[in-house]
Amino acid sequence: MAAPHPTKEGFTYTPGKGLKAGLDTEGAIRPLSSHAAKKDARPFDTIVVGAGYTGLVAARDLTLAGRSVLIVDARDRIGGRTWTSQVDGEKFEMGGTWIHWCMGYVWREIQRYGLDQRLHVTPNKSFPDYFFNKTNFNGNVYQEPFETNFQMCEDAFKRFCDVDGQGGATVVPIPTQVVKGVLVNEELVKKYDQYSIADRIAEVRAKNICSERELSFLIPWFVLSWGARPENASLLELIKWARHGENSFSFLAQILWCYRLLDGQSHLARNIFEEARRTERLCWSLETRVSSIIDRNGSVEVVTDKGSFKALKVVSTLPQNVAAKVRFDPPLSPLKQEAFSIKHVGQGHKIHSFFNKPELRSGVWNAWHENPEKTYELAAAFGDHTMRDGRVSVVAFGGGNSKKLLPSHDPSKIPTWLADIDPIFAETYSGSIWHEWINDEFAEGHWNMHPPNYYTRFHTELQKPHGNVEFASADWADAWKSFVDGAIEQGTRAAYRINQELQSRPGSARL
Amino acid sequence: MAAPHPTKEGFTYTPGKGLKAGLDTEGAIRPLSSHAAKKDARPFDTIVVGAGYTGLVAARDLTLAGRSVLIVDARDRIGGRTWTSQVDGEKFEMGGTWIHWCMGYVWREIQRYGLDQRLHVTPNKSFPDYFFNKTNFNGNVYQEPFETNFQMCEDAFKRFCDVDGQGGATVVPIPTQVVKGVLVNEELVKKYDQYSIADRIAEVRAKNICSERELSFLIPWFVLSWGARPENASLLELIKWARHGENSFSFLAQILWCYRLLDGQSHLARNIFEEARRTERLCWSLETRVSSIIDRNGSVEVVTDKGSFKALKVVSTLPQNVAAKVRFDPPLSPLKQEAFSIKHVGQGHKIHSFFNKPELRSGVWNAWHENPEKTYELAAAFGDHTMRDGRVSVVAFGGGNSKKLLPSHDPSKIPTWLADIDPIFAETYSGSIWHEWINDEFAEGHWNMHPPNYYTRFHTELQKPHGNVEFASADWADAWKSFVDGAIEQGTRAAYRINQELQSRPGSARL
Repeated sequence: MAAPHPTKEGFTYTPGKGLKAGLDTEGAIRPLSSHAAKKDARPFDTIVVGAGYTGLVAARDLTLAGRSVLIVDARDRIGGRTWTSQVDGEKFEMGGTWIHWCMGYVWREIQRYGLDQRLHVTPNKSFPDYFFNKTNFNGNVYQEPFETNFQMCEDAFKRFCDVDGQGGATVVPIPTQVVKGVLVNEELVKKYDQYSIADRIAEVRAKNICSERELSFLIPWFVLSWGARPENASLLELIKWARHGENSFSFLAQILWCYRLLDGQSHLARNIFEEARRTERLCWSLETRVSSIIDRNGSVEVVTDKGSFKALKVVSTLPQNVAAKVRFDPPLSPLKQEAFSIKHVGQGHKIHSFFNKPELRSGVWNAWHENPEKTYELAAAFGDHTMRDGRVSVVAFGGGNSKKLLPSHDPSKIPTWLADIDPIFAETYSGSIWHEWINDEFAEGHWNMHPPNYYTRFHTELQKPHGNVEFASADWADAWKSFVDGAIEQGTRAAYRINQELQSRPGSARL
Repeated sequence: MAAPHPTKEGFTYTPGKGLKAGLDTEGAIRPLSSHAAKKDARPFDTIVVGAGYTGLVAARDLTLAGRSVLIVDARDRIGGRTWTSQVDGEKFEMGGTWIHWCMGYVWREIQRYGLDQRLHVTPNKSFPDYFFNKTNFNGNVYQEPFETNFQMCEDAFKRFCDVDGQGGATVVPIPTQVVKGVLVNEELVKKYDQYSIADRIAEVRAKNICSERELSFLIPWFVLSWGARPENASLLELIKWARHGENSFSFLAQILWCYRLLDGQSHLARNIFEEARRTERLCWSLETRVSSIIDRNGSVEVVTDKGSFKALKVVSTLPQNVAAKVRFDPPLSPLKQEAFSIKHVGQGHKIHSFFNKPELRSGVWNAWHENPEKTYELAAAFGDHTMRDGRVSVVAFGGGNSKKLLPSHDPSKIPTWLADIDPIFAETYSGSIWHEWINDEFAEGHWNMHPPNYYTRFHTELQKPHGNVEFASADWADAWKSFVDGAIEQGTRAAYRINQELQSRPGSARL
């Protein structure tokens, strides 16, 4: 385990001490920069822009293959939208969290570093009376045992997603191939890509496919999952998710929020970084902002606030919502520019809060009001783990009303937001920890979730290279788009392509 | 697509021309040997024994990382128990076949080489009247629409595998970690490892958990899947499979025999081989039998019938059933010797047969009689694909009575065996293609399936290295044991371990 160091990122709040920015993480690399170590003036084989999982895996695979790599990131830590903070020996996942053996890319990494034997299970039945789901929906409150709720969801989710009488299988036959594939009916996918989840809710209500009671759980779950109001959430992406989970809500739930790494995501990220570092072919420059990427005369210049660097190839892992901030010369294709001008809708909160009430470890809460004026700031909360001092960490997600109120602007609102869901949260609150993704200039949102009419128009274009620049990001992964797994898929692919191409170049720096 | 070349392996039979050994495959590499190309007398960094997926992936990952590798195989082709023959432009999977996006290691390879867009779907509803399941069980014949049968199986399979009231989840919480894991109750796993599937059948009958009608499908399916009689098949391994499929028979079926590569497994294997070859650090020696592996004074000598080779490290991918044929010096641990002295029970047929009856493309047949004297030679048959000339290729599997009759000894029996299942197969038969795995001296069986009392005793031991020799095989993979995916898992792990260890050695050959 590498020693944690401070990052400027993340917030803590306690009613006594107020707001504090900055937390410790294993993802903080020391020194922040190593590029002075590069001895010669030759260009790097590859510069990787972004030290999230995509960039880390690309850098590792390329350095393992004998290529020299410089990895540049504007943050003072690795991990991108996935990192683990450490406070008094407790670890908190600030962004990407859960993993599963059906996510093959990340599971491979976990096995590689022997971390598959160190898992934490989120759902917890230790307090059977509190192993419930409580839902606030349109002002009504429903509460029932967790298993009862899951049984209801299992059936209701199947009906909700059954847009074609085949559980969506005619629209998305293979969930890793939404827009293009041997079994894909492109016309049909385009048709469904027009719809929002709100469109489907309207249809489901009109045809009595699900009851209001069932929707009282499903709709907050959509809001939580997209970080967006249903009218801004892509129905096609929901069908993809359903197909990933074989239309079983319990299976999907198991994949999406059941298992996480005891040692934290930053520990996995650090393992990847260290494997690359051990090759002695990795340089890095954190706290380094890229302003331009200039591809001219067969090499690429990456202009940053710490100077310019040159390489034969570049991997841009810039997320969709911020890629337009970097100037590309020659300019990106009009379609890629349009793709980056439209923002994804993943604009929710993720906040860990601490309570002196052990029973909260078992509970699950959801909340939503379809009237925007009356709705809740947080769409879901559940017990995440019991801390060493006996307090319970409850993790809450919200979306749809984002940016109206930022927790860092008035953190004392956090316990109020939770108490809006259940008065139980009004007591024994002792503080919170979070990363304000929706106010993060390097991400401008959390995990990537599409609005309608985006997937089929831009997915293929986003994956295309631009001259010597590969574009790789979980935001346009084929399999687990928006997940750690998708980031690793994209990093793997970028490294493979670059390695193959450099290998075929006469006179390229060979091992 | 690489040009196919002849291998000595595989059989064809036609009533007119009789039996013929040898088929063409993309897995046949020319030249058969390249090791003369190695210019210096230094030992290889690694010798990989076995050119199946495990060995190919280990060799690729190591050569990519700058290590020199010699790959040795007794066969005249790559692929081990997975290879694709080509006859008149038609491709036939002679061994390992189906893949799925839940098998992360192989799906990654498929995406890597862009083959995920070229899939064939085995189940086919083109002939709705023939989209049935027909079962012969204990002399009774049942026939019903495929969907009806699947619905019955869905429910019956859940009940059959529900050994603990939790669908087996207390025994195998995470299917990729059967014997050891953070959630594993080792005592409970050991308890269930004592039981055969026959033990569970007896219990299911005594407690009326499944009807005879339901067992009429399930039991032949077990025989097909294990290549063994139920009394020789491990119940623990069945629970693992059930957990992989989330206790859903239809999901498991989709994973196990739905999607395969249009271009064939040998094309994927060849892609891996060629990526390694392009590094210019790969040597190979096919048709080369290993007799001894001698680990002495910090390097390993691999003695073969084509001479001796030396390396710093060796990866042995010898399958469980043949590993004991190679002499290890120093000798293997007593427990590993015992593990290799017990044979796995995967001793079934896999035979492709051709019929001038297009409707057979849609059918599925099962057969079993619990009286060994009365039982069928083949346990399952189904339409695999329609050939260009309009004939249908039906693939049949059998087990449990293996070695009593070998198809190559009297191939004219094949249509009789099929007609025993359904008289429909007595007509329009025009020939067969198969690999006789149960009579193959380099495998002595097909995919690895455990008898009772094997998994918990030997799994961990089988994974352990022996001095400078890594043992890697799908036979003891953690995730998809016995599958192509498991082979790739094991090859990946062996290469990672060796690379890390060589990197830490002072003075080792660095890039």
